[in-house]
Amino acid sequence: MGSCALADIYPIPVKHYGKSSIQASVLHGPRDLRLETRSISDPAPHELQVAIKATGVCGSDVSYYSKFRNGDLQAVAPLSLGHESSGVVVAVGEAVSGFQIGERVALEVGVPCDSCRSCQRGRYNLCPGMQFRSSAKSVPHFQGTLQERINHPAKWCHKIPSHVSMDAAALLEPLSVAIHATRRAAIEQGDTAIVFGAGTVGLLVAAMAKMSGATTVLIADIDAGRVSYALQNGFATKGYTVTPRHHLTETAEKLAAAKDLASDIVEIACADEPDFEGADVTFDCTGKEICMQSGLYSTRPGGRLIMVGMGTPIQTLPMSASHLREIDIIGIFRYANTYPTGIKILSSGVLPSLDNMVTHRFKGLAAAKEAFELAGKTMDKDGNLVIKIIVET
Amino acid sequence: MGSCALADIYPIPVKHYGKSSIQASVLHGPRDLRLETRSISDPAPHELQVAIKATGVCGSDVSYYSKFRNGDLQAVAPLSLGHESSGVVVAVGEAVSGFQIGERVALEVGVPCDSCRSCQRGRYNLCPGMQFRSSAKSVPHFQGTLQERINHPAKWCHKIPSHVSMDAAALLEPLSVAIHATRRAAIEQGDTAIVFGAGTVGLLVAAMAKMSGATTVLIADIDAGRVSYALQNGFATKGYTVTPRHHLTETAEKLAAAKDLASDIVEIACADEPDFEGADVTFDCTGKEICMQSGLYSTRPGGRLIMVGMGTPIQTLPMSASHLREIDIIGIFRYANTYPTGIKILSSGVLPSLDNMVTHRFKGLAAAKEAFELAGKTMDKDGNLVIKIIVET
Amino acid sequence: MGSCALADIYPIPVKHYGKSSIQASVLHGPRDLRLETRSISDPAPHELQVAIKATGVCGSDVSYYSKFRNGDLQAVAPLSLGHESSGVVVAVGEAVSGFQIGERVALEVGVPCDSCRSCQRGRYNLCPGMQFRSSAKSVPHFQGTLQERINHPAKWCHKIPSHVSMDAAALLEPLSVAIHATRRAAIEQGDTAIVFGAGTVGLLVAAMAKMSGATTVLIADIDAGRVSYALQNGFATKGYTVTPRHHLTETAEKLAAAKDLASDIVEIACADEPDFEGADVTFDCTGKEICMQSGLYSTRPGGRLIMVGMGTPIQTLPMSASHLREIDIIGIFRYANTYPTGIKILSSGVLPSLDNMVTHRFKGLAAAKEAFELAGKTMDKDGNLVIKIIVET
Amino acid sequence: MGSCALADIYPIPVKHYGKSSIQASVLHGPRDLRLETRSISDPAPHELQVAIKATGVCGSDVSYYSKFRNGDLQAVAPLSLGHESSGVVVAVGEAVSGFQIGERVALEVGVPCDSCRSCQRGRYNLCPGMQFRSSAKSVPHFQGTLQERINHPAKWCHKIPSHVSMDAAALLEPLSVAIHATRRAAIEQGDTAIVFGAGTVGLLVAAMAKMSGATTVLIADIDAGRVSYALQNGFATKGYTVTPRHHLTETAEKLAAAKDLASDIVEIACADEPDFEGADVTFDCTGKEICMQSGLYSTRPGGRLIMVGMGTPIQTLPMSASHLREIDIIGIFRYANTYPTGIKILSSGVLPSLDNMVTHRFKGLAAAKEAFELAGKTMDKDGNLVIKIIVET
Repeated sequence: MGSCALADIYPIPVKHYGKSSIQASVLHGPRDLRLETRSISDPAPHELQVAIKATGVCGSDVSYYSKFRNGDLQAVAPLSLGHESSGVVVAVGEAVSGFQIGERVALEVGVPCDSCRSCQRGRYNLCPGMQFRSSAKSVPHFQGTLQERINHPAKWCHKIPSHVSMDAAALLEPLSVAIHATRRAAIEQGDTAIVFGAGTVGLLVAAMAKMSGATTVLIADIDAGRVSYALQNGFATKGYTVTPRHHLTETAEKLAAAKDLASDIVEIACADEPDFEGADVTFDCTGKEICMQSGLYSTRPGGRLIMVGMGTPIQTLPMSASHLREIDIIGIFRYANTYPTGIKILSSGVLPSLDNMVTHRFKGLAAAKEAFELAGKTMDKDGNLVIKIIVET
Repeated sequence: MGSCALADIYPIPVKHYGKSSIQASVLHGPRDLRLETRSISDPAPHELQVAIKATGVCGSDVSYYSKFRNGDLQAVAPLSLGHESSGVVVAVGEAVSGFQIGERVALEVGVPCDSCRSCQRGRYNLCPGMQFRSSAKSVPHFQGTLQERINHPAKWCHKIPSHVSMDAAALLEPLSVAIHATRRAAIEQGDTAIVFGAGTVGLLVAAMAKMSGATTVLIADIDAGRVSYALQNGFATKGYTVTPRHHLTETAEKLAAAKDLASDIVEIACADEPDFEGADVTFDCTGKEICMQSGLYSTRPGGRLIMVGMGTPIQTLPMSASHLREIDIIGIFRYANTYPTGIKILSSGVLPSLDNMVTHRFKGLAAAKEAFELAGKTMDKDGNLVIKIIVET
Repeated sequence: MGSCALADIYPIPVKHYGKSSIQASVLHGPRDLRLETRSISDPAPHELQVAIKATGVCGSDVSYYSKFRNGDLQAVAPLSLGHESSGVVVAVGEAVSGFQIGERVALEVGVPCDSCRSCQRGRYNLCPGMQFRSSAKSVPHFQGTLQERINHPAKWCHKIPSHVSMDAAALLEPLSVAIHATRRAAIEQGDTAIVFGAGTVGLLVAAMAKMSGATTVLIADIDAGRVSYALQNGFATKGYTVTPRHHLTETAEKLAAAKDLASDIVEIACADEPDFEGADVTFDCTGKEICMQSGLYSTRPGGRLIMVGMGTPIQTLPMSASHLREIDIIGIFRYANTYPTGIKILSSGVLPSLDNMVTHRFKGLAAAKEAFELAGKTMDKDGNLVIKIIVET
Repeated sequence: MGSCALADIYPIPVKHYGKSSIQASVLHGPRDLRLETRSISDPAPHELQVAIKATGVCGSDVSYYSKFRNGDLQAVAPLSLGHESSGVVVAVGEAVSGFQIGERVALEVGVPCDSCRSCQRGRYNLCPGMQFRSSAKSVPHFQGTLQERINHPAKWCHKIPSHVSMDAAALLEPLSVAIHATRRAAIEQGDTAIVFGAGTVGLLVAAMAKMSGATTVLIADIDAGRVSYALQNGFATKGYTVTPRHHLTETAEKLAAAKDLASDIVEIACADEPDFEGADVTFDCTGKEICMQSGLYSTRPGGRLIMVGMGTPIQTLPMSASHLREIDIIGIFRYANTYPTGIKILSSGVLPSLDNMVTHRFKGLAAAKEAFELAGKTMDKDGNLVIKIIVET
């Protein structure tokens, strides 16, 4: 989308339209999503006003939608969801330089304090004062992107090249998680990586592991369709469909099942590598305890187990497997300094197409409810795989 | 001890005495320790024959002594214990260069394969083919150092300077664990470190953290005597005596207790640092689940929790505390490339005296049983603190 | 100095005194230093107004003073010098929280853009938009601290504990260089470090190398007094006084001299370490080509040569010595994230006293000229060693 | 090639054929290459005997061939050249396990001491006692692989999968240099890399940079054919043909030319990246001073300049460009722990074909002279590009 098209959308001189009305999709309680009118002012001196064009639906959005909470975070006031977003600049704050109306941007929706130790050292994802859109952590809640327009600090708006679509730009958010995870994994050329979970993040982690030099990337999921999608689209080099196991109540049982799972996966990984002693790095993108347990068994001595997927907060793990073999357990919380990298990567075309990951698209804020209802499922009513859902605005 | 003294001990031309008899302390079952005569040959081409002079008693020795097993490792044949040792060279294999009879050496008792990926990359502690003295892992068991003399690869014998005592040289083994742990902890100048456990390894970890640049080193133990020893002897800058808590059966109770513990410790750490947000690095030298749990709560975002003490193999941990704050959990298994470093450190005199850590000494292999009986206790029958016990031979 | 004392100095309600007059020491050309009156406004919303108490004289100040330029940077307008400073808060901008009038602060005088790649990644010292006080790089020049009061962003003012003197707080600036240099040097416990140059920065680099775990720290200088100061005050463990060599015009001659110098130094370092193969890390704090050359010869294979001292911009170096032995050459430009670390270190008392480094002190801005005249010398007219000169205000 | 075929070649029971005669290509002085008969014994206990099948011709070979010396190393006795080699196992030492007669192997021809600090720490390429085939460094010289058969430690023979050709296996040697160089470069996803020199090593470095995550890889060479080869075969994403500049005698002139070169290259790199501030990493694979100079100008602040190509031993460099911008200068000397990685990479098929890099092939040791004569040229007499020459045996 170029600035000409924009002129049609915003024929009024956008820079000075003062306070104006916008539509917003607002959650008031479990499944209580409403389309409302809000008022928005001109952007503050260091802000841009951005007309949102595409928003990806993320698991945390679905959690808020269905429970009005996400993990430990209970929403206490109406909350707009959405944090995987791209849009077009429609107004420029007076202290901002380097941005023009009509430019297309990806939004990095977490705004850190810029002053604490973590911010100063380049790990701003750990900033205790972080404000993150569509999260209930800060009160008043920092509203998500499922709004017609938002004001956002120019520093956290990233210009995207013309050949990167609005959808792909929105997907820079989950791609950022994958970039951050694979950076912290310190992948070396020729490494073998195992990825648990073939959802959006798992797929992108697998693809990033490949482009970072891993020559064997094995993906495992309970859904055969996702595994097959991963292989057919070049996200991974090998796949494994896990059969869900029921009635595991005792820790011993669970650990035995985890060992079996690790052993099955390692067997596949071994096929071409006779002396295989475990993955150099294992990524858990499921948040499931059994996957973390399996990861400790399936990783080689001196390797790394990366916790990507947020999940079971208290886990019972075979820590001696980590201890005796010096497997580092590394947590991933969001991302830092990934958007510029992600934009270079998207521009280069080395990844499988992010546009193809968009399996379902809903038009208009009014369709958000439908999007959330579908987002919890791995298959739509016609039996098609659900990977990424976009709400287009 | 110089080579003159040695001439009195071994007046025969030691290089060619062929097969000879030695005394050895041999464990045949739980608490079934016997003094026996074994036969020893000349050293193989790349070996030295070393007359053992000092052996420290380690927790794993005590475990074998009382249960004939250590963790998962069941002894299946008679086993000499002892792996913290120093001695004097009494014979030199024909292919060895650079060693003289009479030289004093510290023994690095793990002999890795030298060919596997871990060995080639400098992480030989992870070698799957490692043979480690006094451990039941390899069968036949690789016999420990509580013998009059042993043959050992020259490559794994480290010369020690004249002003380093035989006791201190033996303690290079636990010091190696501390060196390895603090290296992997990547301590930065000005860091705050918390150490759980003030036994030999905990004390040495604390001291190594200090000499690596940590300016606040807080040590915590259930034994007030050990904490006080640590502070009085300069191993740590602050100490905390933990009151043991009973009847914690539920995970929730344990986690609450762990949070309390973390909070108490953090409070002490905070005393001089108003904006304290947690330790940069926490070392667990106890192997206790509650300490690992506390460690996850007491470490700052982006910090590291180092598992030093071998302990509870399956642990229930608040993994979200690691995940959301990117606290890396790093396991320590023995050590690699630490002896030359340890010798430089001992020579430099920057550490608190290792000789002073030897609180009890037993003379002769026949006294080993008495040493093991005492080693399980934190206090001797006269109420004196037990830190390190040496068997002198 | 507490806030009570301050009340005497600034009895008026300091927060609202509006525009006011201050004295400033201003350089108009080579050695043309004038005491002038300037006007200063209330601090901007995110700034503090700080009454300067102590300013250390640095080599770059001396260069501007005598040549009105420093390396490639030519001053083009009147310039206040001074960037090693501490002071007392006398007014607080309205958007600042966490600071009180009367609090004592060390000033980090470089103000980066906070938005570029380097800033975002925690390496703000490399920010291309950096504004650094008393430097002619940015036009209009960002004025130095030799003024009665300055307004400075609160983010770059660091509170200091009551037992750290104003002098020591000013010396946090050169200490920051030393912290940054030793961090990038990745010192390991037991390392041997060589430091060329025993001026303020060289001394602090040596001390920081020691506190980071280096057990042998050898310092070399052409001035015997400085070497002896370093040893007597615990900055280094060994010292070497270099005899200056004249008439070296050909590269071959210079390299031969550099080899000789390296060999002499290595011999000293070897004294207690028979298998010494070179320093683990060598710091050049002189900026002299011959020291960089020697450093390449005196460092062990796989070691690091750290360029700390700014000096000869074009150097002829035996690069094959670096190439064949994989000696990394690492440049140090100022510092990032060092002030909080430096404050912890000063508080801990592990370094030799920074207060003792102040050998000369001048009172009042009017005495600055005298301070600059002395600062170029290694000895005052009474034959006393000149280490650090403070201008007290 | 399978073991059946081998039976035809070595019908005698190869394990016990005792001392036997082989043909060897032996250099006696500049261009004085002779085909001679040598005698070879059975392999020692830890050795394999390998029938050499393919040997790549390297620049250092050509240097010995034409000058009987390479850099500082003067040959002092007859020397077989060749160190990029693969072959087939024809006899197995009695202490060797895991190898069979008939297996295909790539030879890692440097044999380190396995005991020194560098070896123990996984940087065996820096071993001072390294014996490297076809090099005159150790006396007696360790003979190269241009012989019918050689005995070589089994530890340094790497099995290759059946679908990797003997040529590609021989090229694991230059690939190892590229792996080592890109590992030490710490490439991050989305990085921009500049490679000076499009010979075998430069091409492989470029390809490895790409597979390690660099999204822009610019290669520069004075030969347009090589640049075009690099682009057409997917080694790099952008190319630049450098016009050689003559008569640069003064340092100032050379630096000006280097700046121009850097500027031209940066301009190309910038094409798609408006805010380009220099390469994240620059590899010099030429050993030319002007390229090192340019590299310092073309690399971004905080980036890395990697010295890969051995060349001018004494270089005049704009060190302030490194100093003020913290560009690390990192030397590459051969490689360590790269063969297993290289084999995984070749197996995975992610690199451009190594077989296609073989532009010329000579059959039999007698043809070695012809190979060396051609190897100094960039084009053969028919005007075809010379990339890699293989001597097949």
